[in-house]
Amino acid sequence: MNNSIEKLEDIRTLMALFESPGSLDGGGVTRLAYSPEEDEMHDIFRDWGERQGFIAYTDAVGNSFLENDAATAAAEEGEPCILIGSHLDSVIRGGRYDGVAGVVSGMACLKWLKDSGRDIPLRVAAFRCEESAGFGRSTLGSGLITGVIDGDDIADFRNPDGRTLAGIFEERGLDLHPQKIDGVSAYFELHIEQGKVLETVGKEVGIVEAIAGPRRFRIVIDGQADHSGATPMEMRSDALCAAAEMILAVEKIGQAESRFRSVATVGIVKCGPNVMNVIPGWVELGVDTRGINTISIDRMEQRIRISAENIAQERGVEITMARQYEDPPCEMSPHLMDELEQAARAVGATSQRMVSGAGHDALSFAEIVPTAMLFIPCRAGISHNIAEYTTDEAICTGASVLLNTISHH
Amino acid sequence: MNNSIEKLEDIRTLMALFESPGSLDGGGVTRLAYSPEEDEMHDIFRDWGERQGFIAYTDAVGNSFLENDAATAAAEEGEPCILIGSHLDSVIRGGRYDGVAGVVSGMACLKWLKDSGRDIPLRVAAFRCEESAGFGRSTLGSGLITGVIDGDDIADFRNPDGRTLAGIFEERGLDLHPQKIDGVSAYFELHIEQGKVLETVGKEVGIVEAIAGPRRFRIVIDGQADHSGATPMEMRSDALCAAAEMILAVEKIGQAESRFRSVATVGIVKCGPNVMNVIPGWVELGVDTRGINTISIDRMEQRIRISAENIAQERGVEITMARQYEDPPCEMSPHLMDELEQAARAVGATSQRMVSGAGHDALSFAEIVPTAMLFIPCRAGISHNIAEYTTDEAICTGASVLLNTISHH
Repeated sequence: MNNSIEKLEDIRTLMALFESPGSLDGGGVTRLAYSPEEDEMHDIFRDWGERQGFIAYTDAVGNSFLENDAATAAAEEGEPCILIGSHLDSVIRGGRYDGVAGVVSGMACLKWLKDSGRDIPLRVAAFRCEESAGFGRSTLGSGLITGVIDGDDIADFRNPDGRTLAGIFEERGLDLHPQKIDGVSAYFELHIEQGKVLETVGKEVGIVEAIAGPRRFRIVIDGQADHSGATPMEMRSDALCAAAEMILAVEKIGQAESRFRSVATVGIVKCGPNVMNVIPGWVELGVDTRGINTISIDRMEQRIRISAENIAQERGVEITMARQYEDPPCEMSPHLMDELEQAARAVGATSQRMVSGAGHDALSFAEIVPTAMLFIPCRAGISHNIAEYTTDEAICTGASVLLNTISHH
Repeated sequence: MNNSIEKLEDIRTLMALFESPGSLDGGGVTRLAYSPEEDEMHDIFRDWGERQGFIAYTDAVGNSFLENDAATAAAEEGEPCILIGSHLDSVIRGGRYDGVAGVVSGMACLKWLKDSGRDIPLRVAAFRCEESAGFGRSTLGSGLITGVIDGDDIADFRNPDGRTLAGIFEERGLDLHPQKIDGVSAYFELHIEQGKVLETVGKEVGIVEAIAGPRRFRIVIDGQADHSGATPMEMRSDALCAAAEMILAVEKIGQAESRFRSVATVGIVKCGPNVMNVIPGWVELGVDTRGINTISIDRMEQRIRISAENIAQERGVEITMARQYEDPPCEMSPHLMDELEQAARAVGATSQRMVSGAGHDALSFAEIVPTAMLFIPCRAGISHNIAEYTTDEAICTGASVLLNTISHH
């Protein structure tokens, strides 16, 4: 679509507001949860809102909100409003768009509604600590206020400086057991895709059907560490060769399940003793499977287990496999997906339904209200990296789809 | 064979002499080159020799020697003698037998010749710094005095404490440019096998035909690091999956060349970024090939290169392969091999000709005099490990073969 010069200028101005906190030489940012840099991002967000005449406030866990007069009036009458949200923290050496693009699109919607004099109740949220880089667990800010996360479970989690969340909350007068957020009829979140599907297929926005649930495994292979020169090939029990077969089996299983939009990845390999003159005696693999279809995820797990058993038997090594972590897939609201699709058509933006492979604050809200997500492309799919990049045009297109959506909700 | 109680008692006594230096809780030893622990080992060696009435001395690089009267007399007449040697240093957390068993077998031969009143000129050497654990390069003590290693090339090498070899030599009054050893007619070395061939085939001694030459490669695979959840299987360029195919190709190539007694091993794998939620973008492999047949070693290299090219092309990744290090295979003296074989038969020890996959001080001497090596089994082939073990009986059998050999040389 072609964005108007005025709207594009608004996106540029809003993105520029957030440029400075935690900026790194060479590009990128580090804005860890509950750090001075994240605080500064929230101050900028609220200050802008107040200057524009919106109501700005902070909740009991430090999330920031802006709302327009229509939202305030609706609340006084016990009527709910739409919530657009995302986060302002980053990973260590992350990009400028992950989270910020979503918050900015909400701010733009507030401004554009006001500029055009439309009384649509809208609240915009900037959440704390969406990245697990802060305290080892993601979506803390949105999770606490939706009741998805119990404050007791995370009180002892520590940031990279070794400080506990409970200690930081006490120092800041925050509350690990906040009231549950209410007065929200629907939650929308715009986010950079963090993958390269949109770029590859050449579509301007992605309408997320479901957020994939990761299921992770640790596979340990025990062979026999022998001298690499003194042990003939036929007397070996090489853990790394067995691991190589496991890695290729996981890839093949992921490929077989890709028609269900599942993926399977060996992301971690550790090898012992990992020196030139010893046959590897021990290898650990970290396996990440994800999908939106639980039957497919189950089938991947079963097939990986069978592969492990077969390889162990054929090679005379021991292979153990343990589930480390699991989140179920999370479906977005079909009704809101339709609304986003119609809005994209209305504003002339090309769209495609797709899966979110990564988690987002939308996961928290999907538990309590109809929730939908809109993806915009990012260059080469690169994210969680200082090279992360998307255009103001792409953000503006996404924000325009959101504006059209909430205007007709 | 059945060892006499007296000879077995000698071996026990000699091995017990060396028990203490660098001993670790839980077994094993750490006796790094030119450390106080290695010094103590050499003191024990020379002290025992002097107490037994042999001449003990140290050369310009710190190697220790014992010789019997017959050797001294021979030298005065310009006649050479037989040299039996091995080393007294160890790797970090190494075993009690690697090197020591060889030195002890030489000491036993000195004593047994004397006990039986035979005037056979014999020198026994304890070399410094056979293990690369000391200064990153192996066989320094024997390499310097045989002229195989040039002191200038290693002067700046550092030990794990960061001290240079040149600094240590200066402090100790040693000389990086020693006179070349002379007066040696033949070199014999007994060593634990450090593999499990003898144990597997049930033979008491191994007669080394050749010491395999290692040829080592660093293979780097560049793919594309993408989000493991957000990147569909068909859009991936997974460096670890390509690495897995390389690992299995190297194994297959080693197996195909095993009839030439070659081996090929991937001992090292490093993966980047090596986290659960990112598809590996970069993998480095360390490949160790060895053999006694240069044509077979060349063919392995060529086939690994072809595999790398094919995998790179099929997977759309970049693979670079660089030779890191190479030593040619080293053949032992056929004449001395025959002598060892006859001696084994004479004393009733079962024997087998075999390859040494690991390097030894014999490599240095093979450059200047007829050289042979005798292997004895070690439990499960384990070496360079605190679990390294062989029996006093096995050492006694090997030493008896050596004694018989030099008696008939």
